[in-house]
Amino acid sequence: MDTLNLNKHISAQFNAELEHIRTQVMIMGGLVEQQLTDAITALHNMDSELARRVIADDQKVNRMEVEIDEHCVKIIAKRQPTASDLRLVMAITKTISELERIGDVAEKISRTALEKFSQQHQPLLISLESFGQHSVEMLHEVLDAFARMDLEAAIEIYQADKKLDQEYEGIIRQLMTYMMEDPRTIPNVLTALFCARSIERIGDRCQNICEIIFYFVKGQDVRHLDGDKLDQFLTNNTN
Amino acid sequence: MDTLNLNKHISAQFNAELEHIRTQVMIMGGLVEQQLTDAITALHNMDSELARRVIADDQKVNRMEVEIDEHCVKIIAKRQPTASDLRLVMAITKTISELERIGDVAEKISRTALEKFSQQHQPLLISLESFGQHSVEMLHEVLDAFARMDLEAAIEIYQADKKLDQEYEGIIRQLMTYMMEDPRTIPNVLTALFCARSIERIGDRCQNICEIIFYFVKGQDVRHLDGDKLDQFLTNNTN
Repeated sequence: MDTLNLNKHISAQFNAELEHIRTQVMIMGGLVEQQLTDAITALHNMDSELARRVIADDQKVNRMEVEIDEHCVKIIAKRQPTASDLRLVMAITKTISELERIGDVAEKISRTALEKFSQQHQPLLISLESFGQHSVEMLHEVLDAFARMDLEAAIEIYQADKKLDQEYEGIIRQLMTYMMEDPRTIPNVLTALFCARSIERIGDRCQNICEIIFYFVKGQDVRHLDGDKLDQFLTNNTN
Repeated sequence: MDTLNLNKHISAQFNAELEHIRTQVMIMGGLVEQQLTDAITALHNMDSELARRVIADDQKVNRMEVEIDEHCVKIIAKRQPTASDLRLVMAITKTISELERIGDVAEKISRTALEKFSQQHQPLLISLESFGQHSVEMLHEVLDAFARMDLEAAIEIYQADKKLDQEYEGIIRQLMTYMMEDPRTIPNVLTALFCARSIERIGDRCQNICEIIFYFVKGQDVRHLDGDKLDQFLTNNTN
C-alpha cells in the first residue's frame, strides 16, 4: 500500500512537473507573440523607444529557452519518461527552439525600425505591416493549437502558410520596382527586403511547430515527407 | 557474478549504441559537407546536372535527420541515460537539426545555380565562390571538433565566424554597386544576395554546433550569454 501511495505521489509530482514546463512554454510563446507584435508596431510607427525595448527584452526570451531546456533534461534524467511523456518533453525542447528563433526575428525587425528611413522611404515599411500582422496571427493560432495539442487546427495552420508565401512574393516584386525606379533607394529597400524575408521565415517556423504537434499526437515524424505522402497524412487526419 | 556480467553486457551494448549514433552523425556531417561543396562547384561552373543531383540528394540528408532523431528517442526510452550520456544524446539531436539546415542551404545554392544567369551576370556568382569555400572549411572544422568533442578547437572556430561576417558585408556592398550601376541587374543580383545571406547563416549554424560542444564538454549552456560572460567563458577555456 505504501509503495502504491508512493508511486501515486511520484506520478502526481511528475504530472505537475510536466504541466509546469507546458505552462512555461505557453508563457514563452506569449512573450514571443508580444515581442513580434511590438516589433511590427515599432516598425510601422518608427517608434525607436518601443524598438529598443523589444531588442532589450529578447534576452528574456533567450533565458526562457535555456531554462525550459534545462528543465526538460532534468525531467528526462530524473523521471525517465517513456511513450507520450517522452514525446511531450522532446516536442517541448524542439518547440522552444523555434520560438526563440521567432524572437530573434522580432529583434531583427526592431533593428530595422531603428534605421534612418527618410520620410520618402517609409512607404516601403508600410507594405510590411499587414504581412507582419499575418505572421503574428499565424503564431497566435499555432500556440493555441500547441496548448490544446489540436491536430486538426495544426493541419489547417500548416496549409495556410501558402498564403504567407504568396504575400511575400508580392512584396518582393513591389520592393524591386522601387529599386528599379530609383537606384538611390537600394540600401533602404534592401533593409526592407531582408525584413520581409525574416517575416516569411516565421511562417516556416510555425509550420515546424505544426509538425511537432503532428509528432506528439500521432507519434509520426512527418518532417521531410515527400509531397504525396505528406498530402496523404494531412488528408487522412482531416475530417 | 551473473548480474555483474549482465550489467557489463548491457553497458557494452549501450556503449555500442551510443557509438553507433555518433558515427551516424559523422556520416550525416560528411554528406552535408559534400552537398555544400558540390553546390558551390555547381554555382561556380553553372553546372546544372550537379546542381540537380544536390537538390535530389537533400532527401538523403533529411532522412538521416529523422532516423538519427528516432534513434535518440529510442535510446532515451530504453536506456534512460543520465549525466554525460544524456548530454551526448541531447547534443546529437540538436546537432543534426543544425546539419539538416546547412543541407537546406546547399539545396538553395543549387537552385541558384539552375537560374538563368546571362554570361554578363556570372561575375556576381564568382564573388560568392571563395565565400562559399570558407563556409565549407568552417563546417569541416566544426565536424572535426565534434568528432573529438574538442573544446579548444570549438572555441577557435566559434571566434573565427567574425571573418565570415566581414566577408559577407564586403560581398553585400559589392553586389549593391552592381544594382546601382545598372538597375536591369537587380533581379539577378537579388538572387546572388539571398545566396550570400544563406552562406553567411552557415557560419551561425557552425557556431551553434560549437555551443553544443561547449555544452557537452563543460555541461554549461552558453547560448545567449551576454558578451562579457561569453568572453570570460571563452578565455577561461583557452590555453
